[in-house]
Amino acid sequence: MKALPTLRAALGSERVRDDPETLALYSHDETPRSCTPALVLFPSCHAEVQAIVRIARRHGLPLVARGAGSGNVGGALPVPGSAVISFECMQRVLDFHAADRYVTVEAGCITGEIDALARSHGLFYAPDPGSNPYCRIGGNLAMNAAGPHAVKYGVTRDHVLALRAVTGAGEEICCGTRTSKGVVGYDLTRLLVGSEGTLALITEVTLRLLPAPEARATLRACYPDSASACAAVQRVMAQRVIPSALEFMDAHALAAVRAMGAAADLPAATRALLLVEVDGDADSIPRQLHALQEALAGEGLLELQEATDQRAIAQLWAARKSLSPATKAMAPLKINEDVVVPVSRLLELLLEIEAIARDQQLLIVSFGHAGNGNLHVNFLVHPRDKAEMTRARHGLQRLFHQVLALGGTLSGEHGIGSEKAAFVPLELSPESLALQRGIKALFDPEGILNPGKLFPEV
Amino acid sequence: MKALPTLRAALGSERVRDDPETLALYSHDETPRSCTPALVLFPSCHAEVQAIVRIARRHGLPLVARGAGSGNVGGALPVPGSAVISFECMQRVLDFHAADRYVTVEAGCITGEIDALARSHGLFYAPDPGSNPYCRIGGNLAMNAAGPHAVKYGVTRDHVLALRAVTGAGEEICCGTRTSKGVVGYDLTRLLVGSEGTLALITEVTLRLLPAPEARATLRACYPDSASACAAVQRVMAQRVIPSALEFMDAHALAAVRAMGAAADLPAATRALLLVEVDGDADSIPRQLHALQEALAGEGLLELQEATDQRAIAQLWAARKSLSPATKAMAPLKINEDVVVPVSRLLELLLEIEAIARDQQLLIVSFGHAGNGNLHVNFLVHPRDKAEMTRARHGLQRLFHQVLALGGTLSGEHGIGSEKAAFVPLELSPESLALQRGIKALFDPEGILNPGKLFPEV
Repeated sequence: MKALPTLRAALGSERVRDDPETLALYSHDETPRSCTPALVLFPSCHAEVQAIVRIARRHGLPLVARGAGSGNVGGALPVPGSAVISFECMQRVLDFHAADRYVTVEAGCITGEIDALARSHGLFYAPDPGSNPYCRIGGNLAMNAAGPHAVKYGVTRDHVLALRAVTGAGEEICCGTRTSKGVVGYDLTRLLVGSEGTLALITEVTLRLLPAPEARATLRACYPDSASACAAVQRVMAQRVIPSALEFMDAHALAAVRAMGAAADLPAATRALLLVEVDGDADSIPRQLHALQEALAGEGLLELQEATDQRAIAQLWAARKSLSPATKAMAPLKINEDVVVPVSRLLELLLEIEAIARDQQLLIVSFGHAGNGNLHVNFLVHPRDKAEMTRARHGLQRLFHQVLALGGTLSGEHGIGSEKAAFVPLELSPESLALQRGIKALFDPEGILNPGKLFPEV
Repeated sequence: MKALPTLRAALGSERVRDDPETLALYSHDETPRSCTPALVLFPSCHAEVQAIVRIARRHGLPLVARGAGSGNVGGALPVPGSAVISFECMQRVLDFHAADRYVTVEAGCITGEIDALARSHGLFYAPDPGSNPYCRIGGNLAMNAAGPHAVKYGVTRDHVLALRAVTGAGEEICCGTRTSKGVVGYDLTRLLVGSEGTLALITEVTLRLLPAPEARATLRACYPDSASACAAVQRVMAQRVIPSALEFMDAHALAAVRAMGAAADLPAATRALLLVEVDGDADSIPRQLHALQEALAGEGLLELQEATDQRAIAQLWAARKSLSPATKAMAPLKINEDVVVPVSRLLELLLEIEAIARDQQLLIVSFGHAGNGNLHVNFLVHPRDKAEMTRARHGLQRLFHQVLALGGTLSGEHGIGSEKAAFVPLELSPESLALQRGIKALFDPEGILNPGKLFPEV
């Protein structure tokens, strides 16, 4: 490793690691695969990130940026011979301005802690991926993370005002403004958001904060089938009150949590569940609940529960919260898809998923952010069962084609990384991909930033 | 004009015009300058736009896209020997889906008509630039237009889901999704929004629609000086209720409308005015008004008027609405700036503007979207007074430097076009500009799309 002495001189030996324990810790994300990197680097500031990129460029050393490693698509998965850059030593709050409703932080800050800081001043940071308590804001930007509240508040992209970054050429760029409006030049800020560490390493971020909602409440609606639940989703999204969350669980997801002993209080006939949250000023909650109760009522509704205090809310969400461990217990491998269709096409998608499961003899568990039409479709498989894995591949292909036929997209919030790269040409035209490769070459002429990610192999 | 026969064959002679009357009509936008183009083209669909670009590319014919020509910065100003592409024959609604809250329209659709269509289904299109009744959505996207409601609803960029466009290389690209989430590939959609027709010609747009607010109300607050008005703006933006508009007028703006006989009902001592709008469910209006009344009250408040019915609302807005003709009547030339600073720095900016006016003996009228910190700073000058024009140039330079020193940006919603291009290097670094020029070269290798706009001359 030729770059090693220069990197040690730049960062100090303590923050350039190649011991087996450290390499093993940083060899994987939430995908089942792993790859041992050559190095793990822990820069402590923007200038050190810039120094790393310049050294890496000289030596052709691939750099893989990593937040908390909580991604689902291999975005932070090392490639052979690469250096992982962990941002965990960059957690400073650089500027917090409650009056102007923004905060500037380093890329390694934990998303939930940024939100907590904002809330201590009556504000909040809206995007809340499930990994909120431990994921890092730089990773959120790289993947354009979302979460259940996106239906009302939008995704990470909508809350980034400005950023500071180092391109693959080792150049510093500052994009965006601290103000809520600005139209000077091309929107490089939003070009970098969602670029999965392939164009530049984001080092500092200015985020928009909103007034924290005073109160929230939850409704849990039980239905006997997907058809009646989807009809309710459509009614909810057709009326005026935008819920702050609108989550769906299908029959297989309910079976999974029931097997764990959760959700024992659901009516036995429940085979589709909606969890709906509203938030806002305390005196607006009853009116919002009323509108949503009306929308949720309709053919098939088995039970409608309401919760307004913290403990009761937590209880209604229990089934949803236990879903991730529950599905993990069901099979050794979960192929976790993240497709989106227009809300009006959700039922067609669910019926197609049922058909795929039946035709390919697969166990598929579906749940997700129904208000955005964003469904997490989990194929639960056994990697050593070659025949099942082949059927799963066929099923995935059919799923993707159907999603696109319904006017949807292959990923709503997880991104592409290494795991979905091969499927990108199903959605993007050769012309669009050629432009994107051109942008990649412009920002990262030697291709050292996260190689093999986001783009299909040529 | 070598391209003429091929263009006539592609579009038909009727929609390829080079008669002097047509050329004169399309020779200017809202800037005082004009330039007669060689041709005006009226494509009727995406395929014709693509045909035009391919022909233009072969002949090195510069293409200047034009919405309604209502821009302030020369974005649609022809360059010598160019063909103007007017989108007024492309006004079809291609797809409207109330349940999924989106509409797909051709780029020539009038923004206000899109909003009207949405409202007839209980929805609305949020961005509303002042030119709403006649501007075209393609121009709105090109400039990332905003307007008074941006403080609550965001700018054009925040409401574009997908688009179809033709790059300068003549390639079709489709970007984005019809769904409210999507993270497949780089965000080319938002790269094209705000790119001022320099990267691609946007032909079709899918817009996000929101539930239309049931009711609105207006407050008009009068203050004796900018200091007390700015303190009120800060109080408004520090509390929980986000107004749907928060507009400011300074003493010179008030003098201008008073000279026109408008705003006769203002207290005589009023030298700074705030207009505040709230919207939402009817039963939320009293609570919102109460919160804002509390925030607006404070040192200096001379009078606070409230209006909840259509006629009374219109009367409170009268001073603001008559401002544009009023300033036009004050001097032969209005140099119309569009700067933004963080809300907490607004007073510092206003004091600096007063100092510039005093030091340079200039008449400067300021008003704008105070909730975004976005101020329209109008230098009212006489082009034949060379000494005054020199002082105005000095004043502008000082204004721009001060805006950047306050953490602001040179344009909030008007854009760069030809008029502000020289000032871009004050805000963007050489590294950022080099990347932007690289992106330009990638999308438009021959530089035929809107040459001389957005970028400073090299």
